[in-house]
Amino acid sequence: MASDKKFVEEITSMEEDFAQWYTDVVKKADLTGYTQLKGFMVIKPAGYAIWENIQNELDRRFKETGVENVYLPCLIPEGLLQKEKDHVEGFAPEVAWVTHGGAQELEERMCVRPTSETLFSDFYSRDVHSYRDLPKVYNQWCSVLRWEKTTRPFLRSREFLWQEGHTVHATAGEAQERTEQMLNVYADFAEEFLAIPVVRGQKTEKEKFAGAIATYTIEALMHDGKALQCGTSHNFGDGFAKAFEIRYVSKDNTLEYCHQTSWGMTTRMIGAIIMVHGDNSGLKLPPRVAPVQAMVIPIQQKKGNVLEKARELMETLRKAGIRAKIDDTDKSPGFKFSEQEMRGIPVRLEVGPKDLEKGQCVIVRRDTREKITAALDDAASVVKETLETIQNDMFENAKARMESMTYTATTKEAFCEIAETKPGFIRSMWCGERSCEDEIKDQLGGVTSRCMPFHQEHLSDTCIWCGRPAKAMVYWGKAY
Amino acid sequence: MASDKKFVEEITSMEEDFAQWYTDVVKKADLTGYTQLKGFMVIKPAGYAIWENIQNELDRRFKETGVENVYLPCLIPEGLLQKEKDHVEGFAPEVAWVTHGGAQELEERMCVRPTSETLFSDFYSRDVHSYRDLPKVYNQWCSVLRWEKTTRPFLRSREFLWQEGHTVHATAGEAQERTEQMLNVYADFAEEFLAIPVVRGQKTEKEKFAGAIATYTIEALMHDGKALQCGTSHNFGDGFAKAFEIRYVSKDNTLEYCHQTSWGMTTRMIGAIIMVHGDNSGLKLPPRVAPVQAMVIPIQQKKGNVLEKARELMETLRKAGIRAKIDDTDKSPGFKFSEQEMRGIPVRLEVGPKDLEKGQCVIVRRDTREKITAALDDAASVVKETLETIQNDMFENAKARMESMTYTATTKEAFCEIAETKPGFIRSMWCGERSCEDEIKDQLGGVTSRCMPFHQEHLSDTCIWCGRPAKAMVYWGKAY
Repeated sequence: MASDKKFVEEITSMEEDFAQWYTDVVKKADLTGYTQLKGFMVIKPAGYAIWENIQNELDRRFKETGVENVYLPCLIPEGLLQKEKDHVEGFAPEVAWVTHGGAQELEERMCVRPTSETLFSDFYSRDVHSYRDLPKVYNQWCSVLRWEKTTRPFLRSREFLWQEGHTVHATAGEAQERTEQMLNVYADFAEEFLAIPVVRGQKTEKEKFAGAIATYTIEALMHDGKALQCGTSHNFGDGFAKAFEIRYVSKDNTLEYCHQTSWGMTTRMIGAIIMVHGDNSGLKLPPRVAPVQAMVIPIQQKKGNVLEKARELMETLRKAGIRAKIDDTDKSPGFKFSEQEMRGIPVRLEVGPKDLEKGQCVIVRRDTREKITAALDDAASVVKETLETIQNDMFENAKARMESMTYTATTKEAFCEIAETKPGFIRSMWCGERSCEDEIKDQLGGVTSRCMPFHQEHLSDTCIWCGRPAKAMVYWGKAY
Repeated sequence: MASDKKFVEEITSMEEDFAQWYTDVVKKADLTGYTQLKGFMVIKPAGYAIWENIQNELDRRFKETGVENVYLPCLIPEGLLQKEKDHVEGFAPEVAWVTHGGAQELEERMCVRPTSETLFSDFYSRDVHSYRDLPKVYNQWCSVLRWEKTTRPFLRSREFLWQEGHTVHATAGEAQERTEQMLNVYADFAEEFLAIPVVRGQKTEKEKFAGAIATYTIEALMHDGKALQCGTSHNFGDGFAKAFEIRYVSKDNTLEYCHQTSWGMTTRMIGAIIMVHGDNSGLKLPPRVAPVQAMVIPIQQKKGNVLEKARELMETLRKAGIRAKIDDTDKSPGFKFSEQEMRGIPVRLEVGPKDLEKGQCVIVRRDTREKITAALDDAASVVKETLETIQNDMFENAKARMESMTYTATTKEAFCEIAETKPGFIRSMWCGERSCEDEIKDQLGGVTSRCMPFHQEHLSDTCIWCGRPAKAMVYWGKAY
C-alpha cells in the first residue's frame, strides 16, 4: 500500500503553493506531456478528450446560431499582417517567422498565424461583392502560435488550440448584435457545460483587442482569487474593411464598407476547469464535460463473480448513455480510488462481494465524497441523477465562492486595502481614463480592469482612484 | 433563364479537358476559395462540411479499434527531424523553416511539421518505460505543410488537413497487425462511406514511405483512369525506436526496443470523391458523406400554400434524420436545379401547385436523374430508401468502372500497348527489382507501381519487363 499513499502525497496542497498545485494536477491527472520545445505542450489523451467534448458542445451551439466552419491557411505573408496598423502592433512582437520553403528563401517572409483577422479579411475582400453575399458567419478550429516568454500548460503556451470565428456584415448594428450574441454563447457554455460562473462585460480601451472598436469578455475567478479571461468577442467596425477594401453593393446600388467581428475560445478553458473546480485530491470534472463520468471499481475482484458483475454494471451504465469505464487492473482498490479522484471522474461505483450479496453497489461522489447505496437494478438511474446533481452543485458552489470573493469598494483606501489583502474581484466606479488604470496596475501589484459588466450598478458618484466623475462600474483583479 | 444556362455551361466537359473540369467543379460547387498564398487554399463551408463528415466517421471507426486522440506541437526542431536518416532525406527538401520567434533569431531553426513521426518518437521515448505502458495507439487531427512545387486544390497543396496515427508496440507482430488493421479501416471507410472502391496492397521498396520497413496503401481509380493513393499505413519496425531510444522493460525484466506504426488520410479524399463520382453537371456526393442529402425546391413558390407545404416537407425529412434543406430563394427553379446538381446533393424534391393538388412530390435522383413520384406522407421513407439505393448504386457503378479499366498484361508488348492507349490499372507480374520500375516509369510516361495487392494472382511466370522470374503481381498506373 506504500505506492498508493505516494500517489496522493505527490500533490502539493493548493493552500501551500497554488502554482505548484496546478502543475501537479496537470501532470498527475495525465493531461499533458513534455516536449523538447520550450513553451509547447503535448496534450495527452485525458486532456485532449476534455477538449473534444468542449469542441463538440461549442460547435453545436455555434451551428444553432448559423455558424459555418471553414479552414484558412496557417501562414500569413508579412505584407498582409501589416495592413491593419493597430493589429500588427499588437501581434508582430510575438509571431514565429517562416523564411524558407525547402531550400529556397521566400521572397516575402510569412508568420505562422497568431490569429487570422488579416487572412479572413483578405478572403472576404475577394468573396464579398453584393448585399446578397452577406452576412458570412464563419469559424475555424485550428492551432495558433504566439511566442510567449513565460508559459504554463493550458494557461499560456506558445502554441494553443482554439476556434476563431470571423464574421462580416452589411451593417454596424448587425455586427454589434453578433459580437454580443457570441459572447453570450460563451458565457452560457461556460456556466451550463463547464459549471464555471462568469462575469460578462466590456473591456476598457486599454484592454481591448488590437484593431477592435469594442471587445467583450467573460471573466472567471480561480480558486486562488485570480481572474481568468475565458473568451472574448470583438467588434471591428469597418476598420479592417477599410484596410482590406471589403465592400459590397447595397440594395440601393451604393458601394458600402462591411462590418466585422471575431471571437475565440481556447484550450485555456481546461486550465479554468482545473483552477475553478479542483481540490487537493486533484482534478474535479463537471459531469457534462467529463470524458469518463463513472468509474466502476470492483473490490476483491478475484472473489466469486465480482468482476463479471462489475462488468455487467459498466455495460448497464453505458446502455443508459453514461460514459462509464471499469478499472479491472491489478492495482489495489485504494490506489484506484486515488487515481479516479486525481483524474476528476465525477463518480465511482464500488462493488464487492458483500455488496453483491445485498444486490447493491456504493456510488461515491467525487465532489462531496458522499456515499450513496443503490440497488444494482437502479444504479444507472441513480448515477444519472447524481451526475445532474453534481453538475448543479459544482456550479452553485463555484458561484457562491465567486460571490464571496467579490468585494465592493467605494473609497480609494478600501480599494487599496482589498487589493492588498483579499484575493478576488473588486467592484468600483471608474472615470474612464487610462491613466487611472495604469496607476492602479503599477501601484497595486498588477491589478487590472477585467471588464465593465453588462449589468451596471451605481456604487458611488466618483472614480475610486482620481475622484473625477464616475463613468462606469468596473470589475478589477489580478489575472492570469 | 439566360443566367441558368450560363451556370451550367461554365463547366468544361470532362471528356474535353479533365483537369479543367476538376478545377471548374471545385470552384462552381463552392468548395474552395483563393488566397494570396501560392499553393494554399481556403476550404469554404461546402468543402469543409464534407471534411467534417469524413472526420466524424473516421474518428468513430478509429475509436472502435481503441485509438485515442492527442495533440503534439506543430514545430519540429531541426535536430529532431534529422534523427532518423531515411526520414529526413524524404522530407527535408520540402519543409517550411521557422527561423525567428518574435524579434529574436532562434538558436535552432524549426520546421512546420510535414508529418510527426519524429515528434511522436521523441514523446514516446520519454513516456514509455515498461511493458505496462504499451501499446499506445494515438492519433492527431491537424494540418501539415509540404512545400510542393505544383499544386491543385485537395490533391496536392502546400498545406493540407489530415489525421496522423502513431502507435508504439512491444512486439513486431503487434505493429504489423496494427499496420494492416488501419489500412483495412481506411479501405472499408472508402468503400462503405465514400462509395469509392479501392485496391488494398503493399507498396514496393521504391514507393514506400521514408523510414518505413513496409508501407500499405489503398489505391482508387479516377474517372480519367489515373490512380489516386487514398490512404497509407506504415510499419516502422524498430527503426525509429533505435534512433530515438524508445525502449521498455519487458515482463522478463529485459530492455527491449519498441515497434512503431503510422497511418494517415487527408483532405485529398475530397478530390477523390470529385474525380470518382462527378459528372459534367458537377459534383455527385455519396449520401452518407453529403452535408445536405435532400434539397426541397418549391415550384411557383408564390402560389397558394406551396412555400408553406415545402417547408413542412423539409421539416418532415429532418425529423426522419435526413439532412434536408430548402431553396426558397427567388432564383428560378431551373437555376436551383442546376445549382443542386452542381453541388452534388443526392436528391431534390420538387413540389408545385399541381403536386400539392395530388398530395405528392417528385423526388429526383442526382446520380441517375430518375424521377420518383411519392405521396407527401411517404416522402421521408421514400427519400431514405432512395438515399440507400443511391449509395449502393454509386459504389457498384464505380466498382464496375474500375474493373472495366483494369487490364491484365502477360507480355511486355501488351503492357506497353495498354500503358500507351488505355487509361487505368495494369496488372502484371514483376521481378521485385527497382530497375524495372525505373525503366517502366521513364519509358511509359510516368507509369508507376501502385501496389502489390493483398490478393495475389499468378498471371505469368516471369516479370513483364525483364523476363526474370516473377516475385509478385503488381498494379501499375499513372497517378496523381
